[in-house]
Amino acid sequence: MPSSKKKPQQPAQGEPSNPTAPAVETTDPQTNKPNIVDIHTHMYPASYIKLLESRNTIPLIRSFPGHPEPRLVLLPSEVPLLSNPSPTHPPGRPLTEAYTSLDAKIAFMDKHNISISVLSLANPWLEFLSTSPDPSSLLEPALRINVEFEVMCNQHPGRLYFFGVLPLHPENTLCALPLVLSMKMKFKHCRGVIIGTNGLGKGLDDPDMEDVFEMLEEDDLPIFLHPHYGLPNQVFGERAEKGEYGHVLSLALGFPMETTVAVSRMYLSGMFDKFPKLKVILAHGGGTLPFLAARIESCIRHDGYLHKKEKEGRGKIKRSIWEVLNSQVYLDAVVYGEVGLKAAIQASGERGVERLMFGTDHPFFPPLEEGEEEWGSVVMNTEAVNKGLGEGSKEARMVLGENAIKILNLEKP
Amino acid sequence: MPSSKKKPQQPAQGEPSNPTAPAVETTDPQTNKPNIVDIHTHMYPASYIKLLESRNTIPLIRSFPGHPEPRLVLLPSEVPLLSNPSPTHPPGRPLTEAYTSLDAKIAFMDKHNISISVLSLANPWLEFLSTSPDPSSLLEPALRINVEFEVMCNQHPGRLYFFGVLPLHPENTLCALPLVLSMKMKFKHCRGVIIGTNGLGKGLDDPDMEDVFEMLEEDDLPIFLHPHYGLPNQVFGERAEKGEYGHVLSLALGFPMETTVAVSRMYLSGMFDKFPKLKVILAHGGGTLPFLAARIESCIRHDGYLHKKEKEGRGKIKRSIWEVLNSQVYLDAVVYGEVGLKAAIQASGERGVERLMFGTDHPFFPPLEEGEEEWGSVVMNTEAVNKGLGEGSKEARMVLGENAIKILNLEKP
Repeated sequence: MPSSKKKPQQPAQGEPSNPTAPAVETTDPQTNKPNIVDIHTHMYPASYIKLLESRNTIPLIRSFPGHPEPRLVLLPSEVPLLSNPSPTHPPGRPLTEAYTSLDAKIAFMDKHNISISVLSLANPWLEFLSTSPDPSSLLEPALRINVEFEVMCNQHPGRLYFFGVLPLHPENTLCALPLVLSMKMKFKHCRGVIIGTNGLGKGLDDPDMEDVFEMLEEDDLPIFLHPHYGLPNQVFGERAEKGEYGHVLSLALGFPMETTVAVSRMYLSGMFDKFPKLKVILAHGGGTLPFLAARIESCIRHDGYLHKKEKEGRGKIKRSIWEVLNSQVYLDAVVYGEVGLKAAIQASGERGVERLMFGTDHPFFPPLEEGEEEWGSVVMNTEAVNKGLGEGSKEARMVLGENAIKILNLEKP
Repeated sequence: MPSSKKKPQQPAQGEPSNPTAPAVETTDPQTNKPNIVDIHTHMYPASYIKLLESRNTIPLIRSFPGHPEPRLVLLPSEVPLLSNPSPTHPPGRPLTEAYTSLDAKIAFMDKHNISISVLSLANPWLEFLSTSPDPSSLLEPALRINVEFEVMCNQHPGRLYFFGVLPLHPENTLCALPLVLSMKMKFKHCRGVIIGTNGLGKGLDDPDMEDVFEMLEEDDLPIFLHPHYGLPNQVFGERAEKGEYGHVLSLALGFPMETTVAVSRMYLSGMFDKFPKLKVILAHGGGTLPFLAARIESCIRHDGYLHKKEKEGRGKIKRSIWEVLNSQVYLDAVVYGEVGLKAAIQASGERGVERLMFGTDHPFFPPLEEGEEEWGSVVMNTEAVNKGLGEGSKEARMVLGENAIKILNLEKP
């Protein structure tokens, strides 16, 4: 598919909650393959890279002698390696053009039959600036990054949208206000915001987050909730701390568990009841929420404390986790296998197949070997959909692209 | 079913891995209902209660004025409440006879159509003694508890078996040796051992655990791996620490995540490859392993560190997590809902339905209201099996009882 393909149509207006809305046809008439929409795909725009290059503490970008590409150092476990880097294996990951170049993103999309990508800034977003004494110091970088994304989207009409970044600072939630209020007006390709599990520093069950949720609900800007911190290192033990397992435990377990805890805290605090139109898209198929939802319900029903506190027996929470999963929560399909994909759909209710949206997590999880051109994460996630739902089936097409077009109000390819 | 029903048959010898073994019939000929085997059901025997009553730090048992039942205090979050207990809501949970009385256990079994229970000491087992300077000080309590369980089993022939407890101490793994070696000889109802995620204090990927695993493998004593510590409190945030969500987060998320991390560490350290006949039964349907297995595989395949270290690209680990899940790992069916049950079966391979074993987690998750006699956890877990696999189906009967009879070599009811 040519990257400059222009689409004159207006954005589709079909609401996912409307059962009579016609199915959006996203099959490429020439190849008869379903056109894929990737809602989980990251980039670091130029201004963000400059910001990281200027830093001395993680997250930071640094160059090492003998290595052509600068390296992005994110993880606390990599900090000791900064002062004494191995000449052959310096810390962090190489900041290839896959992270930084729009041309590389478009080439990746073309290679993998991806019609539309909804870009987002990769973690850790701007959270490291939230310790700045001046809350308004986040405004300028946030604005600049969102503008950069909007400019990228304008360069490839119909192929790119983005989740914006918010200038969240614990001292002043209202610094996010003007940005959110003007987001839809200023940025016509913005389809929501990516946020971490930390919120304003105290998690998403922090009462101070209510201002933010209220604004997002009012503007119908979905949250794309994405992990960054994982779990405290001690959980993974000595051998992991020595690096024996690479990053497997922090990425494979820490990330999805972080997301699950964050959304569960949000649920238990009553935030979903308070903002019943707020939409939350959970990264990595909801972390582990689909598998644990029933256990959460059981624990709520059996918790003496919640029962003693409020007679109806659910504490602050009005609706079951299942009701929230099939009304306000959406899941990406970044689960790498059939088992997780099916569980994610089943947990999302009778019409759960309408609530999953394909993603790649590009450019993380890169090709294994030099010369290997297909990204393993794309292959694994596409196979999960095709095997789990039947290649070419209506359901597979929905998860691969149609759902995202409806839910995020994207222009039909 | 009368609790004194005697069964003259010898233990079934069918191996779960033998496809030609005849299906064990466990349907009650009078009621035509499947007889249920409960492999996840806890008790505190008398000597263990005495031990906890003598302690001043958690875990401990204490009585509070105005409350007829002594209370069992397990959680660090409850410690501050010990010195300043609320007169109406003292810390911990009431130590009802459900935790301590064999008659109560048998009555619970009869009420819920449970033919056989495989009892185990509830957490925290003897881990709190592992800080004792004398490693052999664990031997006597461990031996006493195992003897008590054996005596209980002898009182109800054919209805009770147990998972024993090991005297694990970081200073001397060999103190477990005589007990394990003699377990099968001394305790004819012992069908494995319950252990926590901590092992000898450093987790189950600790090289010192190899002695223990070797002995258990040699004696064909399965491990029933059960959580106790959950996740560090900070993960759950301020509102949880204030008690606002009761114990929901620590029990619903902390417990299964702890199990998942523990078994993943064991897997990444190569323990399953080293002890290929060791059987590990994971509590709570594997925590979240069924949902995350594919992500673990993806992370292993993409981890630069593991790849650079060993050319074959899997680090120390020879087999995929799927291979381990369908050969050495068994899951209980304590998942409270269909979504988790199906994911657990699918993750366990083509013959996954042969690897799940019903459990209740009794007497935790008690009836909600006074007068309510059916335990919610039993109802939820039975419904999950019946809805997920079809009430009365061959598959439902397998998960409800037949699998446990084969895998744990129990006497047919």
